[in-house]
Amino acid sequence: MRILVIHGPNLNLLGCREPAIYGRETLEDIDTSLQALAEELGVQLRTVQLSSEGAIIDYLIENAQWADGLLINPAAYTHTSVAIADTIKGLELPTIEVHLSNVHAREEFRRHSYIAPVSIGQICGMGSNSYLLGLRGLAAWLTKTKLI
Amino acid sequence: MRILVIHGPNLNLLGCREPAIYGRETLEDIDTSLQALAEELGVQLRTVQLSSEGAIIDYLIENAQWADGLLINPAAYTHTSVAIADTIKGLELPTIEVHLSNVHAREEFRRHSYIAPVSIGQICGMGSNSYLLGLRGLAAWLTKTKLI
Amino acid sequence: MRILVIHGPNLNLLGCREPAIYGRETLEDIDTSLQALAEELGVQLRTVQLSSEGAIIDYLIENAQWADGLLINPAAYTHTSVAIADTIKGLELPTIEVHLSNVHAREEFRRHSYIAPVSIGQICGMGSNSYLLGLRGLAAWLTKTKLI
Amino acid sequence: MRILVIHGPNLNLLGCREPAIYGRETLEDIDTSLQALAEELGVQLRTVQLSSEGAIIDYLIENAQWADGLLINPAAYTHTSVAIADTIKGLELPTIEVHLSNVHAREEFRRHSYIAPVSIGQICGMGSNSYLLGLRGLAAWLTKTKLI
Amino acid sequence: MRILVIHGPNLNLLGCREPAIYGRETLEDIDTSLQALAEELGVQLRTVQLSSEGAIIDYLIENAQWADGLLINPAAYTHTSVAIADTIKGLELPTIEVHLSNVHAREEFRRHSYIAPVSIGQICGMGSNSYLLGLRGLAAWLTKTKLI
Amino acid sequence: MRILVIHGPNLNLLGCREPAIYGRETLEDIDTSLQALAEELGVQLRTVQLSSEGAIIDYLIENAQWADGLLINPAAYTHTSVAIADTIKGLELPTIEVHLSNVHAREEFRRHSYIAPVSIGQICGMGSNSYLLGLRGLAAWLTKTKLI
Amino acid sequence: MRILVIHGPNLNLLGCREPAIYGRETLEDIDTSLQALAEELGVQLRTVQLSSEGAIIDYLIENAQWADGLLINPAAYTHTSVAIADTIKGLELPTIEVHLSNVHAREEFRRHSYIAPVSIGQICGMGSNSYLLGLRGLAAWLTKTKLI
Amino acid sequence: MRILVIHGPNLNLLGCREPAIYGRETLEDIDTSLQALAEELGVQLRTVQLSSEGAIIDYLIENAQWADGLLINPAAYTHTSVAIADTIKGLELPTIEVHLSNVHAREEFRRHSYIAPVSIGQICGMGSNSYLLGLRGLAAWLTKTKLI
Amino acid sequence: MRILVIHGPNLNLLGCREPAIYGRETLEDIDTSLQALAEELGVQLRTVQLSSEGAIIDYLIENAQWADGLLINPAAYTHTSVAIADTIKGLELPTIEVHLSNVHAREEFRRHSYIAPVSIGQICGMGSNSYLLGLRGLAAWLTKTKLI
Amino acid sequence: MRILVIHGPNLNLLGCREPAIYGRETLEDIDTSLQALAEELGVQLRTVQLSSEGAIIDYLIENAQWADGLLINPAAYTHTSVAIADTIKGLELPTIEVHLSNVHAREEFRRHSYIAPVSIGQICGMGSNSYLLGLRGLAAWLTKTKLI
Amino acid sequence: MRILVIHGPNLNLLGCREPAIYGRETLEDIDTSLQALAEELGVQLRTVQLSSEGAIIDYLIENAQWADGLLINPAAYTHTSVAIADTIKGLELPTIEVHLSNVHAREEFRRHSYIAPVSIGQICGMGSNSYLLGLRGLAAWLTKTKLI
Amino acid sequence: MRILVIHGPNLNLLGCREPAIYGRETLEDIDTSLQALAEELGVQLRTVQLSSEGAIIDYLIENAQWADGLLINPAAYTHTSVAIADTIKGLELPTIEVHLSNVHAREEFRRHSYIAPVSIGQICGMGSNSYLLGLRGLAAWLTKTKLI
Repeated sequence: MRILVIHGPNLNLLGCREPAIYGRETLEDIDTSLQALAEELGVQLRTVQLSSEGAIIDYLIENAQWADGLLINPAAYTHTSVAIADTIKGLELPTIEVHLSNVHAREEFRRHSYIAPVSIGQICGMGSNSYLLGLRGLAAWLTKTKLI
Repeated sequence: MRILVIHGPNLNLLGCREPAIYGRETLEDIDTSLQALAEELGVQLRTVQLSSEGAIIDYLIENAQWADGLLINPAAYTHTSVAIADTIKGLELPTIEVHLSNVHAREEFRRHSYIAPVSIGQICGMGSNSYLLGLRGLAAWLTKTKLI
Repeated sequence: MRILVIHGPNLNLLGCREPAIYGRETLEDIDTSLQALAEELGVQLRTVQLSSEGAIIDYLIENAQWADGLLINPAAYTHTSVAIADTIKGLELPTIEVHLSNVHAREEFRRHSYIAPVSIGQICGMGSNSYLLGLRGLAAWLTKTKLI
Repeated sequence: MRILVIHGPNLNLLGCREPAIYGRETLEDIDTSLQALAEELGVQLRTVQLSSEGAIIDYLIENAQWADGLLINPAAYTHTSVAIADTIKGLELPTIEVHLSNVHAREEFRRHSYIAPVSIGQICGMGSNSYLLGLRGLAAWLTKTKLI
Repeated sequence: MRILVIHGPNLNLLGCREPAIYGRETLEDIDTSLQALAEELGVQLRTVQLSSEGAIIDYLIENAQWADGLLINPAAYTHTSVAIADTIKGLELPTIEVHLSNVHAREEFRRHSYIAPVSIGQICGMGSNSYLLGLRGLAAWLTKTKLI
Repeated sequence: MRILVIHGPNLNLLGCREPAIYGRETLEDIDTSLQALAEELGVQLRTVQLSSEGAIIDYLIENAQWADGLLINPAAYTHTSVAIADTIKGLELPTIEVHLSNVHAREEFRRHSYIAPVSIGQICGMGSNSYLLGLRGLAAWLTKTKLI
Repeated sequence: MRILVIHGPNLNLLGCREPAIYGRETLEDIDTSLQALAEELGVQLRTVQLSSEGAIIDYLIENAQWADGLLINPAAYTHTSVAIADTIKGLELPTIEVHLSNVHAREEFRRHSYIAPVSIGQICGMGSNSYLLGLRGLAAWLTKTKLI
Repeated sequence: MRILVIHGPNLNLLGCREPAIYGRETLEDIDTSLQALAEELGVQLRTVQLSSEGAIIDYLIENAQWADGLLINPAAYTHTSVAIADTIKGLELPTIEVHLSNVHAREEFRRHSYIAPVSIGQICGMGSNSYLLGLRGLAAWLTKTKLI
Repeated sequence: MRILVIHGPNLNLLGCREPAIYGRETLEDIDTSLQALAEELGVQLRTVQLSSEGAIIDYLIENAQWADGLLINPAAYTHTSVAIADTIKGLELPTIEVHLSNVHAREEFRRHSYIAPVSIGQICGMGSNSYLLGLRGLAAWLTKTKLI
Repeated sequence: MRILVIHGPNLNLLGCREPAIYGRETLEDIDTSLQALAEELGVQLRTVQLSSEGAIIDYLIENAQWADGLLINPAAYTHTSVAIADTIKGLELPTIEVHLSNVHAREEFRRHSYIAPVSIGQICGMGSNSYLLGLRGLAAWLTKTKLI
Repeated sequence: MRILVIHGPNLNLLGCREPAIYGRETLEDIDTSLQALAEELGVQLRTVQLSSEGAIIDYLIENAQWADGLLINPAAYTHTSVAIADTIKGLELPTIEVHLSNVHAREEFRRHSYIAPVSIGQICGMGSNSYLLGLRGLAAWLTKTKLI
Repeated sequence: MRILVIHGPNLNLLGCREPAIYGRETLEDIDTSLQALAEELGVQLRTVQLSSEGAIIDYLIENAQWADGLLINPAAYTHTSVAIADTIKGLELPTIEVHLSNVHAREEFRRHSYIAPVSIGQICGMGSNSYLLGLRGLAAWLTKTKLI
């Protein structure tokens, strides 16, 4: 099983950016944890952090053949990118959308996602655990497994 | 660690209700899985299915002393109940909101949650795995554990 | 043919409540008329008045096996209850929504119904005749009969 | 008792138009049924199908003297015609609005009616039975009869 | 003079719930104060705390005969319950709506009340004094007295 | 304890203006009652009726040093004056907003107040008793007294 | 000077239709008055009452060559007809829009006019005097006269 | 017959202000014309230009006893002043609202008037002739005269 | 291949109407060009200009049997006619909607089309070439041809 | 004559992406057809597919000198990119916007285009023929030719 | 060069009012700084603080002849005064709007300005430096100077 | 003191693009002026023009360590980029947003900025002087200097 992991814009700021909201963990920490869990689950990961909407689209299209699923934190593009949603829908790539913070408890515009309707589901609010639960959930979805 | 599990209205219909959206699993199946995972995680569960907004509020208040956290699928009350949100906020009970279906891919009114802003986070779209990930996430949150 | 009849909140006030809008007939009068028509049509009725959203949901689920169809005046819950609509949809119970008053001629918020989109149709504005026409229409729908 | 029956635009397409929504019955079939019921009820009918908003207005004004009531399916004009609503209100003609399909279960704009607020009530979703129930309801309203 | 006092959902949490907003007084404290004032004013009280919309409706209908007026803190149902508003309007029970907190200084959705338009008036923002002023105001209204 | 009382625009019309809504009492009557209550409560009043938004602002600033609190019926400026709200907020003057009529039962635009969010609370719908209750409530708030 | 006078839908009901709003004068009475004033002003009139949007458009186009200006009461089409507005704009026919009733004091949707932005101005609320003032105003506009 | 004429803010700029919209006539020119017409109609005028909302309210209240009617160009206050509308409604002063320019053909916010719903009617778009027609219309309304 | 061409209201004004927006070409010029292209493409045309919504509906129904497709410029009815859209949908007539001007660069209300969602597609902004491209596109669609 | 052709994000997915909506043709097929038509019309093309908003802007600015016109399918950026619209407006490059699918028959947000108001016109819904008609229309526009 | 400086309502509270938002500087401090800068720039100032919308309008009209430009902090009137915007537009007085606080980072209603669209530009968020930059910018604009 | 200067998309078009709105100055002219002012103020600048949202984010993150503040003209991204706002907020980089044109006097959508709420303030409408005032303001803010 092969899963793409895409971190959207500003996630490379993790650890310094607004720790009250996002915590002190770095993106590297998250990637290390994801890698460890992936090994436990027998999943191969390709991980990337990208700041540009177009780069995310290109990366998705280039890696779609390789991948069985997508774990994505679209960050700000969650709320503004019709284009990334179109890519995911077009590639028919099973996708879980994750967020570190609870997007429903912040500005009104963060409650709307263009990505979620073309995904399997959404997980938010649990810091790096959102990613780890997302990976677990996606792997289970791809293997039609119950998570017990 | 003690966790309340509340299934909102109509979840007792699971298995017969709109299987195209909700699958064929019954609520009993979900509870069995949750119980199994709870044992694995060393968590005690109190589980209930309630159809009435007021009954959910009463149950929460009566069991709040006992509980360290709440795993709730508020179902339709997600979108209409200010009162349940007030209870959760008033009790300061750490809460994860879960949904079987992807609420972001259905009617527009299902994209708004009164409960999510007073919760730690929200998980949706993965069937009974939404609950299992939610339980895992909540237990981790209560013990400040990373889920690897 | 067996039909549930549910009167929503405040319908037990009929006869005293705002007679300018609702007339002087009591709920008992309506039930008597419905019973008479049911006998004429060879239909069995189970009739109940309930004030609570949750009680309506529970009653529906408990009686769904028995019933072939539902005649419901959801009263105020017409405009606020996603949960009752979910129950009706989940049970796949053929439903006619009725109102004594013309909901389209009152406050703006009374023009929107959560129940109507999951029903066969809606009848309003004709006092107790709304119920009687609704029963007739539902019986005809269940037997695929033309009402002449 | 004399009742006008007006079928709005496109109802002459019945039988061929979107049978998934409107069924296979023709307008002639409906008129035959209405006529039969009218005879049973001792009601005289004048029936017409008109495609133009202005023609409906003219027909209403010309026949208002003759008529005791109006049974109208305004079709698309339900949602756009202030003018027809003004005519009905101006003539003080007791009116029942009927629809073959369940307008509350279709596009959002079909949920709003300009005609309903100036009518006695609205019946929708039961195919040609909407008309038959409407005729019965209107006749009862005009004779202040209870429909049992 | 006999007055119903209804405390809506979550008011039994008073004293523990969000003291920054609601203060440290308990519901029992409020009821004791109300009782003392009632005696001073020569008013009889029937007081209840109810969590369920339906229970509030039932309680209102059962006690309406006994009561001359209603003092109600509908709490969250202020903003969501068409049904309770319909009950109050239907019973023609003179009503004062009270709130402990200043609902106009909180979330936008708390600025709208379904209950206020069917009440004599609304008092908010003064903690338990909102109730005491409300009782005084209602008693004066019922006796057509000026409060000096 | 010293309290400013400000009557906004058109309140000098009281007694003649729309008696169906505002009653037959004059502003002088209200001021007499307020004065009597103030004496009972040991409060000094400065009372003024002002028609101009700017004059209200100037009066507030000029008298802020003298005053411990403000009782204001901003009348129409309730709904349109950001400037008066800014003055009250800037002066940090404890304020109760009062209205003779039930603003929630009139035109939609009267349900929104710019003043209420910068006040302690709002009282409406009880005629001159709204003022008297407001004075009592404000005096209690300033002395941290319970109104029994 | 030659002026078209167009009465929109339902104005032929004048005298019988909602006299509380429109008064007891008939359309014939208005036309007689307009004719008398036209003679006084040395203006030729062509007057018509039309119920259909399309008929108004055709009439306008057919008579545009003849006319120097247009006095129109578009009635309900005021609020719904982009097409008539396009005709008036296309013909560059100097136009005054008139209404018998005060459209700003009725339903919200009557406050918006598609016709007014392509007209010289609008006069409403003065019964048949709206027409007479409109004719006077239009004649003055066409002759660049001051109305003293 | 005695009529107040109030020119709202910025009308003293007439003749210099945006001549493309308002023409080259000065306010003095308008007042001269109004005076001439008033003499012709046997009407006494009191005329004033006021820049302040509060001043307009005070002027109205002070002169209401003297006046039989009000001709007002509220200018910008048309769109923002609830207070002036309340004064006019409170005084029950028969009022015609006039505008030099066609308010329906400018910015969207100029299409809404708080004053019009409490007036007899509105006249706009004809420059100073709007005033002259307004005076004529108001005088006719006060004497229940037809304007021919 | 047989194609209906319908020109909506005001298109007979072409050549005189607002040449800055619509150019100097007449409708006859457009029809001549369409005829020439139709001959080149081996297509038979039936062309009509109609001002009335109802007349367009009647024409469509009467000619639907004859036609393989529809080229329509609904003009103002684009934005207001649910009825014409229902006719096109009901007849299942392959349709291309065309506009001379760029409807997206004009008033906001011209950006919404009721007709486009029931059509194959829309072409706008290229003057009479919009029609010629539309005819070419429709003919290609009917013959499943690529336009090279 | 030299024309830029820009394919926006995800158009390189053509042939695999949602064939129910976009058909089975690849982008290469479209480019081949465009090239063939360009040769027939004596037009030079520069064609590119770009996934990034910024890249489209850069490409436009770099190639603007070379180009006489622009044929663009902005895909998802149609609905979200103010920046690309600003580039086209700034460069004053005659532009036709094309879409393969009928954007008016899909999600509500796809009905709004930022690009269309700065273009000559828009063509949608005819698959690759949208491009071919667009090229033909643009070439005609640049040479002021009628397309017969 | 002569410039009017107008401080709107509540700016005389500076130094005491909400120092967290507005800082500790007084209005006198700001005026002293402005005066010093004006001397440096060879500009004459007339400075005033006014609380009333009408007074600002009157002051503007009275001083417009004297002034070459206007530096204004309209404070709360920024968001509510159509009348002041009309004055500035009518006087064609080159205007810079300034704000001490960042109006875009506060309540939603503070993001909209009626004054800005009739001004040269807007400067906000830099405390008294907003004024000093505004004066510098306005002086440069009036002398068509580049600020280096 | 070190300040980043970022020019957003299309600013490299300056001098040719819509001179009526943006003037004839080139971006190079602006940079030369900024450099001159920077030297005068003892500020080091790093200046860049970027067309891509992602590139702006990357540039900000790469240069954030070096910089004490940011002067940014986000151009079109002002209105659409949540991502750039998140970067600025995350980096806690003191920021002034500038615009050449008066964004409040153009299309409605240009009045909303995602960037302004995370900035110190905004300056607009003064052409290149907006930048020069912004630099001056930012330098003063960083050194807590008053600009006299």
